[in-house]
Amino acid sequence: MNIIKGFPATSQVSYQLNVTNILKHGARSFGKQEIVSKKHDGTFFRYTYRDAYERVTCLANSINSLDIGIGDKIGVLSWNTYQHFEIYFGIPGTGAVMLLLNLRLAPKELSYVVNHAEAKFIFVDENLLYIAEEIAPFCKTVKGYVIITDKRLSDLSTPLEPVYSYEEILSNATPEYKWPNIDETSAYSACYTSGTTGRPKGIYYSHRDVYLQALIYAANASISIQDCVFQVVPMFHVLGWGTPYAATLVGAKLVFPGRYNLNDLEDLTKILVQENVTISNGAPAILMPLLEHIRKLDSRPDLSAVRFISGASEPPIAMMKGFWDLTGAEIIHSYGSTEAHAIVTLNRVVPALEKEFFEEERWDFKRKQGYIVVGLDVKIVDENGNELPHDGKSVGEVLLRGPWVSGSYYNAPGSEVQFTDDGYFRSGDAGTIDSEGFLKITDRLKDLIKSGGEWISSVDMENSLVSYPAILEAAVVGCPHPKWQERPLALVVLRDEFKTKVTKDEIKEHLAEKFAEWQLPDEIRFVKRILKTGVGKIDKRTIRMQYKDIYTSK
Amino acid sequence: MNIIKGFPATSQVSYQLNVTNILKHGARSFGKQEIVSKKHDGTFFRYTYRDAYERVTCLANSINSLDIGIGDKIGVLSWNTYQHFEIYFGIPGTGAVMLLLNLRLAPKELSYVVNHAEAKFIFVDENLLYIAEEIAPFCKTVKGYVIITDKRLSDLSTPLEPVYSYEEILSNATPEYKWPNIDETSAYSACYTSGTTGRPKGIYYSHRDVYLQALIYAANASISIQDCVFQVVPMFHVLGWGTPYAATLVGAKLVFPGRYNLNDLEDLTKILVQENVTISNGAPAILMPLLEHIRKLDSRPDLSAVRFISGASEPPIAMMKGFWDLTGAEIIHSYGSTEAHAIVTLNRVVPALEKEFFEEERWDFKRKQGYIVVGLDVKIVDENGNELPHDGKSVGEVLLRGPWVSGSYYNAPGSEVQFTDDGYFRSGDAGTIDSEGFLKITDRLKDLIKSGGEWISSVDMENSLVSYPAILEAAVVGCPHPKWQERPLALVVLRDEFKTKVTKDEIKEHLAEKFAEWQLPDEIRFVKRILKTGVGKIDKRTIRMQYKDIYTSK
Repeated sequence: MNIIKGFPATSQVSYQLNVTNILKHGARSFGKQEIVSKKHDGTFFRYTYRDAYERVTCLANSINSLDIGIGDKIGVLSWNTYQHFEIYFGIPGTGAVMLLLNLRLAPKELSYVVNHAEAKFIFVDENLLYIAEEIAPFCKTVKGYVIITDKRLSDLSTPLEPVYSYEEILSNATPEYKWPNIDETSAYSACYTSGTTGRPKGIYYSHRDVYLQALIYAANASISIQDCVFQVVPMFHVLGWGTPYAATLVGAKLVFPGRYNLNDLEDLTKILVQENVTISNGAPAILMPLLEHIRKLDSRPDLSAVRFISGASEPPIAMMKGFWDLTGAEIIHSYGSTEAHAIVTLNRVVPALEKEFFEEERWDFKRKQGYIVVGLDVKIVDENGNELPHDGKSVGEVLLRGPWVSGSYYNAPGSEVQFTDDGYFRSGDAGTIDSEGFLKITDRLKDLIKSGGEWISSVDMENSLVSYPAILEAAVVGCPHPKWQERPLALVVLRDEFKTKVTKDEIKEHLAEKFAEWQLPDEIRFVKRILKTGVGKIDKRTIRMQYKDIYTSK
Repeated sequence: MNIIKGFPATSQVSYQLNVTNILKHGARSFGKQEIVSKKHDGTFFRYTYRDAYERVTCLANSINSLDIGIGDKIGVLSWNTYQHFEIYFGIPGTGAVMLLLNLRLAPKELSYVVNHAEAKFIFVDENLLYIAEEIAPFCKTVKGYVIITDKRLSDLSTPLEPVYSYEEILSNATPEYKWPNIDETSAYSACYTSGTTGRPKGIYYSHRDVYLQALIYAANASISIQDCVFQVVPMFHVLGWGTPYAATLVGAKLVFPGRYNLNDLEDLTKILVQENVTISNGAPAILMPLLEHIRKLDSRPDLSAVRFISGASEPPIAMMKGFWDLTGAEIIHSYGSTEAHAIVTLNRVVPALEKEFFEEERWDFKRKQGYIVVGLDVKIVDENGNELPHDGKSVGEVLLRGPWVSGSYYNAPGSEVQFTDDGYFRSGDAGTIDSEGFLKITDRLKDLIKSGGEWISSVDMENSLVSYPAILEAAVVGCPHPKWQERPLALVVLRDEFKTKVTKDEIKEHLAEKFAEWQLPDEIRFVKRILKTGVGKIDKRTIRMQYKDIYTSK
């Protein structure tokens, strides 16, 4: 877009938006507000914003002494811990770029990312050393490893070299640092897309992007100094969805769960209660199992002060209602992506619309991605790029434009096609916008099922399936069909107590309440688990491959 | 400050922060949220963000057809009305600059401002025509006047020419407009300082300044879509303290009082109740009389859902306690200035500090300007520019730096001294910062009273005076003294019911509870009213002039 100069203002134009200032200023203004972090040994580490900032200045000094400087890329392999929080500010504040490494990616993909970014150092949690060790032989640009550990280096056994201890380099550094005034359009951090198709692609977020997103997040989700924010979303996913910055910006208490997986639901539940959490975040991939865990408890926690920001995929009504009924917690659906940051939309109650709903419609409405936050241009277009009406029916690809949306991928020849001439990012999501401006993602464009020239939404069908009491999880994909082009296939995981008690016909009958006869899946398969990608989404590409002959080989 | 380039990011760098987008996007996402505006005839005008935006596009088209273009300055003389709200977005969106005219300034000062800015047009409310008419002969650059009125032009009698009707030009325009992508560092609007010393000086706010301030405001004051914001602060003061933007950004209901003055306290109170206001703003100059009005009501309104952002001068404890005890409303002290926008600090409860206070200390603490919001560098320095410690005691001049602080005055030779070499604005305020980062303004530097080499704060003494039940208003100034350099003089307005019942000695006794013997005013004078400036602050310069001989002529 052409930029037009107006009359000059009298502003301090040389003062740049700088993410590290968010903590520097936060420590000044909310010095005694608390940060809590669960350690690997199960104990809790507690300190304050002021303490954190002091360590961040030490970190900045120490990485400079490792010969890391402006423009260098530094890989980070870590859980959600207070040290990761420090790294969020300490590395980029010096002008280096924090390269967030998704610890669930395959080693081959990870080393590709490290090499593509030409990472100079890798910071790695002691519990994730095995990943660094596996990829190290292929990472030619890496000059050293900083191990995040409380142990002495001599007590660790690793073939990596040279290695440094995070705690040691911090304790040797002085707690004062003169932060450079980094140009705000310079890279703050890089995340790579998970790459379900093709190679992972790099998004290099500017300081400006992240700063604005933090402000937009805090303002739209009403995160305040009174809140306690529990950072459940992995901090290597889209900068932890921006929550750590938003919380710091307003001085909220912050809680990090440390290392956790689906076996630690009891611990997560305990933290929610014990720390008086009021805001948390997560994908249904973690929120659904969390609800299942809570469902089975004799004494269910009161989470009526908690709102969960739920993203990555559509929150099933059953999940939203379940949390509400069992714990009082509210689920707020939010939509974002690696390319567009976490908060593109938010589904909060708009008072002027509230009276328009009946109870059941309200729950259905909460499935929508929500209103588009101020700051972004969003449109839906057909295959020819023509903008579609906001009627809640017309399905088109969602295009995004705005100050914190990516305008390109880093060094990825051929990827230019994902951006339009007028500056929009093609999200790859198919969706509708209703007359009140609410976005609803129907499906990933490539996951929409085309049957006899008509579209079937796999997301809608999955949502309907998991609303059936017997069904724990479900995946719906389109499989090639000689007559109809594609026909839906449903994979279903039954709850233990319903196994052998449910028939496919019963499930079809349930679906028929919401779907037309021709939309119903030709096949329903009971499976033990649903295949997921490294970022926890249903791996539909692989599922389609596995079942590609199901309708053609008959 | 030197800007250092880092590694390039992949962001959409050509997308500019543009204030008009705040309403454009607000109308899209919160289309049915309500805007209410009291009209001159006492009725209420109601419409929605969507309606407002449609009229704003008409406004943009119509001003272009008046040959107003990029970089032109357009004066605005208006009350807080929905049309003023439209002008906030319609004029600057085209690339023109909205010049806010303080209708309480003297005509000579106003015409100086119009000429200094070389305003091309003036938008004027029909009730303020008399001001435009008075200054028109001296405003050589003004090519025409747009009158904000529901009446037909032919029903108005004015010597101004040429004149246009706001409603007519809007009704002749099309409701579609292609907004230019204005460089975000270009001027959005100009406000001139009130000029208690020297000529008024112009601050030309950039789009970026205003956009960031709106975000900072919404995030720090926790303004949300659930709120109803009542815009009491005149919209010609520091952009109405940014509240109209913050409210629009999050989709809050907005209420404008129209024309009001100190005789309309009953109306303001009614609006607070009837519209279910949750956030409002104002200086003690309006909040004190409002509280006095409420105190006398037989049935006091329940304002327990309301928080007032109070600025411009320190809120007296008596006022904060009064609102709390009588109505349940909370007063939140905020500090800002024309040069630094509205929200430099905010005094909200920091949970980590809460337990440190006893009840009385809490009220005293609320007098502080508050914590400095994230984004700004603030320091206090002595006369030689040395930074002073944050001990809550050391008094120095407050220096401000940040993305929404002014770096210069427009075309004001000699004013460079108000900015330091390292980019700070010298606020002219004297203050302390405590160990928790809370700013307390002791006084305007020039209002501090220097007696025998020691400082006395006129603000503290005024606050103590109005906490005495008999005292309605007070002003304290330093007057030249042959021996002590300066000695304090107190002017006091007694409440009607206490007149003739209070002695000066009783007042001195009251002051002696908080002040040392040598700090007490040599003279206390009972007066009928306290002289105020055009922006409603105590006019200490004139008071000092009036009483300059009081201690020397004896």
